[in-house]
Amino acid sequence: MADRAMIFAAQEYRDRLARLQAEMAAQGLGALLLTTPADVFYTTGFLTRFWESPARPWFVVVPPSGDPVAVIPAIGAELMGRTWLQDIRSWDAPDPHDDGVSLLAGVLAEHVPAKGRIGLPMGQETHLRMPLADYARLGAALAPRQLVDATACVQRVREVKSAAEVTKIREICAIAGRAFARVPDFVAEGRPLSAVFRDFQIALLTEGAEWVSYVAGGAGPDGYGDVISPAGPAPLRRGDVLMLDTGAVKDGYFCDFDRNFAIGPASDIAKRNHAALWQATEDTLAALRPGLRASDVHGLLCDSLRRHGATPSGGRLGHGLGVTLTEWPSFTPLDHTILRAGMVLTLEPGCVTAEGRIMVHEENILLHAEGAEILSPRAAFDLPEIAA
Amino acid sequence: MADRAMIFAAQEYRDRLARLQAEMAAQGLGALLLTTPADVFYTTGFLTRFWESPARPWFVVVPPSGDPVAVIPAIGAELMGRTWLQDIRSWDAPDPHDDGVSLLAGVLAEHVPAKGRIGLPMGQETHLRMPLADYARLGAALAPRQLVDATACVQRVREVKSAAEVTKIREICAIAGRAFARVPDFVAEGRPLSAVFRDFQIALLTEGAEWVSYVAGGAGPDGYGDVISPAGPAPLRRGDVLMLDTGAVKDGYFCDFDRNFAIGPASDIAKRNHAALWQATEDTLAALRPGLRASDVHGLLCDSLRRHGATPSGGRLGHGLGVTLTEWPSFTPLDHTILRAGMVLTLEPGCVTAEGRIMVHEENILLHAEGAEILSPRAAFDLPEIAA
Repeated sequence: MADRAMIFAAQEYRDRLARLQAEMAAQGLGALLLTTPADVFYTTGFLTRFWESPARPWFVVVPPSGDPVAVIPAIGAELMGRTWLQDIRSWDAPDPHDDGVSLLAGVLAEHVPAKGRIGLPMGQETHLRMPLADYARLGAALAPRQLVDATACVQRVREVKSAAEVTKIREICAIAGRAFARVPDFVAEGRPLSAVFRDFQIALLTEGAEWVSYVAGGAGPDGYGDVISPAGPAPLRRGDVLMLDTGAVKDGYFCDFDRNFAIGPASDIAKRNHAALWQATEDTLAALRPGLRASDVHGLLCDSLRRHGATPSGGRLGHGLGVTLTEWPSFTPLDHTILRAGMVLTLEPGCVTAEGRIMVHEENILLHAEGAEILSPRAAFDLPEIAA
Repeated sequence: MADRAMIFAAQEYRDRLARLQAEMAAQGLGALLLTTPADVFYTTGFLTRFWESPARPWFVVVPPSGDPVAVIPAIGAELMGRTWLQDIRSWDAPDPHDDGVSLLAGVLAEHVPAKGRIGLPMGQETHLRMPLADYARLGAALAPRQLVDATACVQRVREVKSAAEVTKIREICAIAGRAFARVPDFVAEGRPLSAVFRDFQIALLTEGAEWVSYVAGGAGPDGYGDVISPAGPAPLRRGDVLMLDTGAVKDGYFCDFDRNFAIGPASDIAKRNHAALWQATEDTLAALRPGLRASDVHGLLCDSLRRHGATPSGGRLGHGLGVTLTEWPSFTPLDHTILRAGMVLTLEPGCVTAEGRIMVHEENILLHAEGAEILSPRAAFDLPEIAA
């Protein structure tokens, strides 16, 4: 038998399970049904890039007491068998006649009485990773049991990270920090942005990332047009501000931070905005406390940007981080989620530097009872210049 | 204005649209609602790794005539504005009160009369990438319009690749082929599998992949335990068979094939099974024709494996390929999808080599009216040996 595929000791998963079951009890749920890579990994330790194939659904059922049950395609049974889970039911997927639906319905019916309620994440930042038609069949098979929203149940548990999780996020932040330190080795005037993206991914892997899930960036005079575009063949030019952003992964945990670089001497506009972004992050880091709301953090960042002479951009200015690139809450004026000790978050102020141009800056932090600790190697105050 | 982000000329997307609208007309659909990265990319050319963030839903509405409408978060409006689409509606997501639902309902109501039907993919290999609770709200807002399954409508169009798409798949297959040729440079007895996975990803990027979406593999004496596990720290040993599998990506198109290597001299078991896998692929390549069913291909592969003295493994033995790592159909005994000229497919025979051990072999092919053309650089008949 191969070594068990755990990432963490079994006690870590038992602690998560106890917290989930406490939330379930408070909400009167007879079971929790999980279908996404993040939720399955969080409860079991089952880690595979095979999720990239949309062909097969995967299920974890969390009962009100006792251990979770995995209901999964046979191709994953060997790997799931090396996690802490004991109860693994599998079928030969994909099966066009019944792709695990009756097997799953049977497991749920074992745990949930006919008048009971089965919770699934149905709210913001969630989706159901199984075919809608199969979900309808599942609901019919389980009736009169009700399928209800359990977003809060999952989010209140996952949003508070354990010490073991923080260690993982700290490690991938350090890896990305070393990769960012190598950017001057492969960035130069005249190099296409696409080549820079490629070399940055290689640097992340070389420094210890297992997977580069996310790379984005932009480049332009005094700022960039957007922050989600793929890289094109256009070469970097003297006077550009280059931004690179990454969600690299090790042991299933993400970092998510970016860095800016000037190609040649930085313009006054770029320097001034970079300083404002850095200061807004610094001011907000000092003010962060559990009990603040996500919307308060948005206000802190915007106020500080304005105080330092910058114009805040729209959109959210930070978010949670962990087993996905982004997690709730969102630092927007509309999200009033209460910050709690143990949350890992990003501070991501952005500002408008010119017509159609923005600059952004991002750090990853851990919220303690007494305030914020920065997990990403802090950006330099001065916008780094790469000799052109 | 930056260069338009198209991947293909606008005519490519107009051709796809015409084919989708013909299917929609045949099924009496008043609109098609698409939510996944693959379907949005397919209809618009909108390509970003930002999908990695689960925070925001994205929508494309295909009307029965005229161009698609993008209903997307504001953060993506700039990039979508560089595709061929003209009608782009955006909102400031994430919005906990109304995350695009009323905007989307309005667009759908513009095109679909009250007695009309709106199609979504609801069948196998699909999922809805928006919160379930928002989907329920959308359904309520659109009533009495019906939301119905449009899986076949999308699949019959996407499964037949255009010449432009085949060019992209050919290119990424060639890139992966060059990366596989470099495996002997970084594989050796004593190297941990995790280091091999890292170096293989670097080789793929160096050879021209833009993104390494998928890497998997395994190693063991005479075969491996499974094909979806992440790499562990265990070192390669003399006598191991190493398998590496990749779904690398360029311009949004995937390859998906694997290669086997012996660490030191190959055992008779490994040689014999590799030969049988190679021959089963060769025999099936020669027999493939449009009009066969997916289940027929499964039978061809199994028959040939047995004829060459090997024991077929369970699970599917190949599948479609394109804008996701795996697409329908599945080469299983249960999938009776008819093969059509223009399909890009994988042949992926697997066999049991010993108790709990398997070997797999995979090639990517294009089906023409007169037969199959191989797109991946054909594996060598002899299992390559890496000096230990």
